[in-house]
Amino acid sequence: MSFKAETSNVILSGAKDHKDHQTEEKNLIKKLIEKIEETKAPVCVGLDPNLSFVPEHIKKEAFEEFGESPEGAGEAIYRFNKGIVDAVYDLIPAVKPQIAMYEQFGIPGLKAFKDTVDYCHEKGLLVIGDIKRGDIGNTSMSYAKAHIGEIEIGSKLFRPFNEDFCTVNPYLGSDGVQPFIDVCGKGDAGIFVLVKTSNKSSGEFQDRTSDGRPLYEIVAGHVEKWGASSMEGDYSNVGAVVGATYPEMGRTLRRIMPHAYILVPGYGAQGGKAEDLKGFFNDDGLGAIVNSSRGIIAAYTKEPYNDRFDGLSYADAAREAVKDMLEDINGSL
Amino acid sequence: MSFKAETSNVILSGAKDHKDHQTEEKNLIKKLIEKIEETKAPVCVGLDPNLSFVPEHIKKEAFEEFGESPEGAGEAIYRFNKGIVDAVYDLIPAVKPQIAMYEQFGIPGLKAFKDTVDYCHEKGLLVIGDIKRGDIGNTSMSYAKAHIGEIEIGSKLFRPFNEDFCTVNPYLGSDGVQPFIDVCGKGDAGIFVLVKTSNKSSGEFQDRTSDGRPLYEIVAGHVEKWGASSMEGDYSNVGAVVGATYPEMGRTLRRIMPHAYILVPGYGAQGGKAEDLKGFFNDDGLGAIVNSSRGIIAAYTKEPYNDRFDGLSYADAAREAVKDMLEDINGSL
Repeated sequence: MSFKAETSNVILSGAKDHKDHQTEEKNLIKKLIEKIEETKAPVCVGLDPNLSFVPEHIKKEAFEEFGESPEGAGEAIYRFNKGIVDAVYDLIPAVKPQIAMYEQFGIPGLKAFKDTVDYCHEKGLLVIGDIKRGDIGNTSMSYAKAHIGEIEIGSKLFRPFNEDFCTVNPYLGSDGVQPFIDVCGKGDAGIFVLVKTSNKSSGEFQDRTSDGRPLYEIVAGHVEKWGASSMEGDYSNVGAVVGATYPEMGRTLRRIMPHAYILVPGYGAQGGKAEDLKGFFNDDGLGAIVNSSRGIIAAYTKEPYNDRFDGLSYADAAREAVKDMLEDINGSL
Repeated sequence: MSFKAETSNVILSGAKDHKDHQTEEKNLIKKLIEKIEETKAPVCVGLDPNLSFVPEHIKKEAFEEFGESPEGAGEAIYRFNKGIVDAVYDLIPAVKPQIAMYEQFGIPGLKAFKDTVDYCHEKGLLVIGDIKRGDIGNTSMSYAKAHIGEIEIGSKLFRPFNEDFCTVNPYLGSDGVQPFIDVCGKGDAGIFVLVKTSNKSSGEFQDRTSDGRPLYEIVAGHVEKWGASSMEGDYSNVGAVVGATYPEMGRTLRRIMPHAYILVPGYGAQGGKAEDLKGFFNDDGLGAIVNSSRGIIAAYTKEPYNDRFDGLSYADAAREAVKDMLEDINGSL
């Protein structure tokens, strides 16, 4: 089940091993599709463990052991994640940890991020690092290597954070995105480029119209073009992020990027509904993966789950919430 | 000289201390201007230590002690940075570490980033974290707290990365930027929002014209508006990034954002020239801070310095290069 656990943290010494690794592991979008078909679940769970979602007993234990400190917070969110992952890993193809929720606790938080990625790989899950990085060329290459590629140190190769996919911000244009695409082409990786984000003010810049077309459509045109170099079957390793909160735009963007997998945030807590999701999928029933974060990992605090579940059974509540989400989404498609 | 070293990594226990800290430390842009006037140097040095810039003797020592590993790489870049900082700290007001160059080495790399921030504070330098983060509201707040603010864990407060300023990507719109501005308003922090970046393909999306104005001008209009809530004297804690490689646009943007400090990358290695910089400044001689990274920290590998300097004297070469940069820029203004 584990795709990458064996290379996590591991030194790939020498060019030959490196090459074998590349050949063997190529084309991640195919793996994602296989796992979606296997689980019948075009969804991923957002591992965004705000400390306020973490049940008291987990925080208490972690703080007793490591203090009310970044170390204690990192340990608490890692333990919380483990509980969620153990409860849902057989139902879903992938998780999407939001790195900001870890970065906020500094180095120990980022250690919890890395440990979470590794644990998800152990359980056979694909990991979409929601990192929204993007910079000028050589700097973007450093981010790409850090998150979905390999970095050379002396004569050795390492995979620092070892996600399978990551999200990319396109504001800097092609030369800021290309290094991520190059890394997709070299190894076992994919990206989702921000096209139309789920938040309220996403339209402020993304909807600006020039030559009769809004910016998000222009970015989408680039995504389809960028993806051409990294195709496997009908889909590319270069995908897009389009918020569930904008279903009409989703339909249009689906047509502009027929070969891009669409990562769809905004379902549930942010207001996106299952009936709105249909337009994000292609006629083959593929083409989109819907994320829910708070709706799953904080289910025990929310209706209808808070009647039956509490902090001690937060993971069971998450499992119930995933099942309900699948019924909701698959029922609407 | 040290503005923040005393709060770095430190637990600020309880609300009262926190409040006092706020009152005492407010308005970072004023401090930046004071330091620029004191040093007569409207420049910052980009601490972007690509491993290929680090002299062999430093790498050798670090690898012998920590192995050819992320730990070894982190140690090597930290030692390299210390040498640069020791050689130039009295000449300049600020440094700008590019976090991608650290993140590429995973956790040990980010530890080197944090140690670099702390060391720069010890030497009295202001630190501009070039992180280009940006996300939806609550997620942006996590980034803002991590880098330029404080995070609450149980009853305690921490400053995880403790930069003074950071760069912010505006693609998600106002609700993605506002949390950073809120943190600026609460404490001792400032931001620079990406407006027109220095890279070749920055125009692909940033130059798209709608209602007769390119996107970068529209973003600039927002920067001026966002900054109104965080003014001290003539300038705001909300600044902008505009590449030296686009001097004409710089002149226009200077007019659109009269109260924004402009962080100007792209001088030197990327092709920006001193004579092109004038338009980025206001008539008061203030309003811009020009960054050079490779041109300073890798000076020993480049003309005209590589005749007189080598890996062992890389820091002296950096000092020479800073002096030459100051002469070049101040001569043109």
